[in-house]
Amino acid sequence: MKPTTTLAIAIAASLGVACSSSSSPQTTSGGGGGGGVAQLMKDRNLTEADVTAALKTFTPSGRHDEYYIFASGGHSGQVIVIGVPSMRILKYIAVFTPEPWQGYGYGDESMKILAAGRRHGHDITWADTHHPALSETAGDYDGQYLFINDKSNPRVAVIDLKDFTTKQIVTSPLIESDHGATMVTPDTDYVIESSQYPAPLGGEYADVKEWNDKYRGAVIFWKFDRAKGRIDPTSSFAIELPPYMQDIADAGKKVSDGWIFINSLDTERAWGGNKEGNPPLESGASQNDMDYLHVINWKKAAEVAKAGKTEQIAGMPVIRLQTAIDEGLLYFVPEPKSPHGVDVTPSGEDMVVSGKLDTHTTVYSWAQMKGLIDAKEFATKDPYGVPVLSFEKSIRGQAEVGLGPLHTQFDGDGFAYTSLFLESAVAKWSLAKLEVVEKIPVNYNIGHLLTAEGDTVSPDGHYLVAMNKWAIDRFAPVGPLLPQNFQLVDLSGPKMQLLYDMPIPLGEPHYAQMIKADKIKAENIYSPAGIDPYTGERSANAVEPNQERIEVKPDGVHVYMTAIRSHFTPDIIRVKQGDQVHLHITNIEQADDATHGFALDSYNVNLSLEPGEHNDVDFVADAAGVFPMYCTEFCSALHLEMAGYFLVEPK
Amino acid sequence: MKPTTTLAIAIAASLGVACSSSSSPQTTSGGGGGGGVAQLMKDRNLTEADVTAALKTFTPSGRHDEYYIFASGGHSGQVIVIGVPSMRILKYIAVFTPEPWQGYGYGDESMKILAAGRRHGHDITWADTHHPALSETAGDYDGQYLFINDKSNPRVAVIDLKDFTTKQIVTSPLIESDHGATMVTPDTDYVIESSQYPAPLGGEYADVKEWNDKYRGAVIFWKFDRAKGRIDPTSSFAIELPPYMQDIADAGKKVSDGWIFINSLDTERAWGGNKEGNPPLESGASQNDMDYLHVINWKKAAEVAKAGKTEQIAGMPVIRLQTAIDEGLLYFVPEPKSPHGVDVTPSGEDMVVSGKLDTHTTVYSWAQMKGLIDAKEFATKDPYGVPVLSFEKSIRGQAEVGLGPLHTQFDGDGFAYTSLFLESAVAKWSLAKLEVVEKIPVNYNIGHLLTAEGDTVSPDGHYLVAMNKWAIDRFAPVGPLLPQNFQLVDLSGPKMQLLYDMPIPLGEPHYAQMIKADKIKAENIYSPAGIDPYTGERSANAVEPNQERIEVKPDGVHVYMTAIRSHFTPDIIRVKQGDQVHLHITNIEQADDATHGFALDSYNVNLSLEPGEHNDVDFVADAAGVFPMYCTEFCSALHLEMAGYFLVEPK
Repeated sequence: MKPTTTLAIAIAASLGVACSSSSSPQTTSGGGGGGGVAQLMKDRNLTEADVTAALKTFTPSGRHDEYYIFASGGHSGQVIVIGVPSMRILKYIAVFTPEPWQGYGYGDESMKILAAGRRHGHDITWADTHHPALSETAGDYDGQYLFINDKSNPRVAVIDLKDFTTKQIVTSPLIESDHGATMVTPDTDYVIESSQYPAPLGGEYADVKEWNDKYRGAVIFWKFDRAKGRIDPTSSFAIELPPYMQDIADAGKKVSDGWIFINSLDTERAWGGNKEGNPPLESGASQNDMDYLHVINWKKAAEVAKAGKTEQIAGMPVIRLQTAIDEGLLYFVPEPKSPHGVDVTPSGEDMVVSGKLDTHTTVYSWAQMKGLIDAKEFATKDPYGVPVLSFEKSIRGQAEVGLGPLHTQFDGDGFAYTSLFLESAVAKWSLAKLEVVEKIPVNYNIGHLLTAEGDTVSPDGHYLVAMNKWAIDRFAPVGPLLPQNFQLVDLSGPKMQLLYDMPIPLGEPHYAQMIKADKIKAENIYSPAGIDPYTGERSANAVEPNQERIEVKPDGVHVYMTAIRSHFTPDIIRVKQGDQVHLHITNIEQADDATHGFALDSYNVNLSLEPGEHNDVDFVADAAGVFPMYCTEFCSALHLEMAGYFLVEPK
Repeated sequence: MKPTTTLAIAIAASLGVACSSSSSPQTTSGGGGGGGVAQLMKDRNLTEADVTAALKTFTPSGRHDEYYIFASGGHSGQVIVIGVPSMRILKYIAVFTPEPWQGYGYGDESMKILAAGRRHGHDITWADTHHPALSETAGDYDGQYLFINDKSNPRVAVIDLKDFTTKQIVTSPLIESDHGATMVTPDTDYVIESSQYPAPLGGEYADVKEWNDKYRGAVIFWKFDRAKGRIDPTSSFAIELPPYMQDIADAGKKVSDGWIFINSLDTERAWGGNKEGNPPLESGASQNDMDYLHVINWKKAAEVAKAGKTEQIAGMPVIRLQTAIDEGLLYFVPEPKSPHGVDVTPSGEDMVVSGKLDTHTTVYSWAQMKGLIDAKEFATKDPYGVPVLSFEKSIRGQAEVGLGPLHTQFDGDGFAYTSLFLESAVAKWSLAKLEVVEKIPVNYNIGHLLTAEGDTVSPDGHYLVAMNKWAIDRFAPVGPLLPQNFQLVDLSGPKMQLLYDMPIPLGEPHYAQMIKADKIKAENIYSPAGIDPYTGERSANAVEPNQERIEVKPDGVHVYMTAIRSHFTPDIIRVKQGDQVHLHITNIEQADDATHGFALDSYNVNLSLEPGEHNDVDFVADAAGVFPMYCTEFCSALHLEMAGYFLVEPK
């Protein structure tokens, strides 16, 4: 230890006495027992840096976090909500994967949302969620909605942040995968979904050897209807792209508003085939020095689509590649080999691209690119006739950041932060000078990173999170499937400061966004009682107190049931084997802490009924017997008695 | 603030200077920027108690937690693994609910495990997990296995803690729900599962009005084969019980080894029917002053079962109620109204029962009960002829603990800790004096609670966790479905000290156990490569490097594939529409951080292949088209290129 430490501990000792002498078990958190700072540092082997980190992240009992992080869950198919600075996980939002605690995918209406995501006639019970996008107004997060994509089965979901519930899933047979999704335009007019792995458009079949002629990419512009809080597929459109592997996208803002930027890899058009005499894809796709940054005029594209200059492919109006070229919607700019992230700066003036096999980030100037486009000054064309701008004339410069640069985020003070996968570090560099000013090591291999409101026109700075892959030995072992490691970094001091290691216990997040907590206006109750969260409407089957009943109708037995602490009414249901059963259950309570669950033994029936929530569930009573039903929530001291029986008389 | 605080801050200020002056970004955690303790207390409005709590829970970057908590996930159907004292969630273990990140329920073998849990011919895709039980040796946790029940669809699962993976699910048609599950006998000879809501045994039908004659409870003793790491249903048996609602159980230990204790409610035999002129169940079941603690001689029962004095009901050998009475296996002792928890003290000498409508915990003396049993001194019999011991002669006394006592845990110093649901507090009381020595308030309504190794013959004390229902306003809002709140309490000081509030982001835990971290011997790699975790064996389909191939066999197209950074071999698969496809994929890597995922677009195929793991998956290629397949893990800088195509030629 340095001398200062010894001094510090000597001083801290007396502080310790003061601390413990004045504490009491009545205080909000802690108090009692205790030991002082110096003693605790000794007992738990904490450095002074640890003490600082502890006090910057500890969030006392009952205190709320300052920020929310919304992270994708990767192939868990969910969204993870995390509080900052405590790094406590506040909620897993079920999106593409059925989740019983939330009753998501177990009632009629939530099953309809999932069914809308069917692909090629198959139910899909998982997703590979990658890039969450918070809704924006004038380029700033507004806290109203969250969008998230499924890379594997190309789909986009809409989550309402009033109740943190998934409201819609959309998919188009046009493409077979996505990665440049989801990103929103500055006023959330459109949600962007661009393909990754080329395929014949519209689900057609063609052998991979016909790649150059038959395989294509595309970018879909999903129209968002903010008033309805839903995507409107009928007003959405797509643009055909060459068969490169389009990657992450970002929307222009301020001076570059109206344009989007998508980078790409595999302009070599390699498709693998390592048993067919071809090099493996990872080397075949890494031959060229340059790939193409796609520069797209989406506002003009919307007009072109509106003017009907499209072709219907699998129900989606598509602006064909030649039309996109002829109408001046699509331009390419060379970008150093195998780029991964493209990030538009807060001012909208620059686009930062990192080549993962390069040691630089390249900063493109929107003014220069726009000048070349307006002057129709093109260096060349790609094999499909897309005009290509000059690399040299398009860039403002490059920053030497380090090994394996992937993604870049921003603060409010003119600095950029780039993740370095191979170097396991974050580089902080000046946007003005294009010079690295500081690096901080992370544990271990970092993928994406995020800063507070870092995708907006006004980033907060303050916090950065390194989204590291493979915690390896960082946490107590939990078997071969390792957690990821989110490391919270404080940006508020003169130097970057690592504050906290957070394991991800479920899912493999790719990207995340951080928003000020006061922008989220979540509600705790569905009012009036009888609302089905998945439609957002009061259900036609909502049940009023004292209106509980069982009705036999031509389409089966309808049970109109209410739930209130501590009973279901009716609590005895008698049907005959083979009857079609329709349960309509309303939680008629309006108190914050009055959620009820509804479980029915052996029929796979499971609902979560938040205060005021109504759900319906249909099934055939094909098995005779005696089946207990009960409330799965610890809703009162007598919750075990909130039960009844579903009696199925044999035929 | 008190004067001492001002003094403390003055002192802390100098410490602060010392802190920040000696910190650097190279330190493991924290460092840089910083500000001193006093400044941070001011900036973040932290009390001295908060500082103490922060320093007792903060776990520096790379440092491992001291304890693991294994908590049930309630109706999420999972198990939650939490580190103590950091209260970071380390993993969600998929048990009864399919979970795509772990690939659980997506490959052939894990689907077989879930299929073993089918009920009445139905796939069950969720569960209501309640009571985890760590395997024990001589009454102490040994860290080898974890068992967990499903209350709704009565089932028991076995999790191996070498890889934190679910290996087995067992269920019996004998009963229709459970709650006294899972608890283990001191050497894990048996895993206990007792029913909750009575029903005709074996899935028979009888109207609820025939309750007294046709409805029954039962306790199943699942035989655990530790060598195989699996439950052996063929050596398991059950005991028939009267149609009361059996509740939580606990196994005797040391002096009471060989016996188990199950409490009960609804000895009134009320069954609801609030639309049929009956009182709602919660009042109908709360009429009597006393219910019955069930006292069962399981060692003798095992001999009786072995002797064949059983009746086969739905494939389970059942000791009928009369046989249990005749053989002296079953006794009742009155317990104050609507008891909930029964907990055997570390010495095995006492059984603590809390009546949730009472203000007492009742302490039963095993010596006294055993004396009465041996002397055949019975006060009366229940309506089914079960001998009932005298309440007064069975108890050592009662402790006045407070309102709504539910569950009790223990430390190593002779103290018991009882959760008070209505009072929202934990009462610490002396087992010797039966007197409360301290109470600590919790936020809010507490259900279960746990202490470090609190269910064993040698509790650690040190930490207690209050498992609170309904966080309400404790955390940043996430909509109407509120998280639960785990509050960590330090027991090591002279007074109980609240350290940390932890939100549960997914699931509604009921009970949990806490075990020393060094008892868990988890492995990070499956070795040799080719092991299917769900069988624990090397797969007959395991693929060796350079043995990759596609074979057309009478039963379909077999693809033998390897995964290694950064490619699948083969990476192009051609089949004809309608072909039966069998994928056999081995991750041939043996490095800690070499997990690969395997996703196939639109066919709902998703696997997680940890280092050395092999999985098989079968499906019919019923949809023609071009389907990308790729690695869902960020396995290298070139992970996007770890991809290929599944080509289905139209008929």
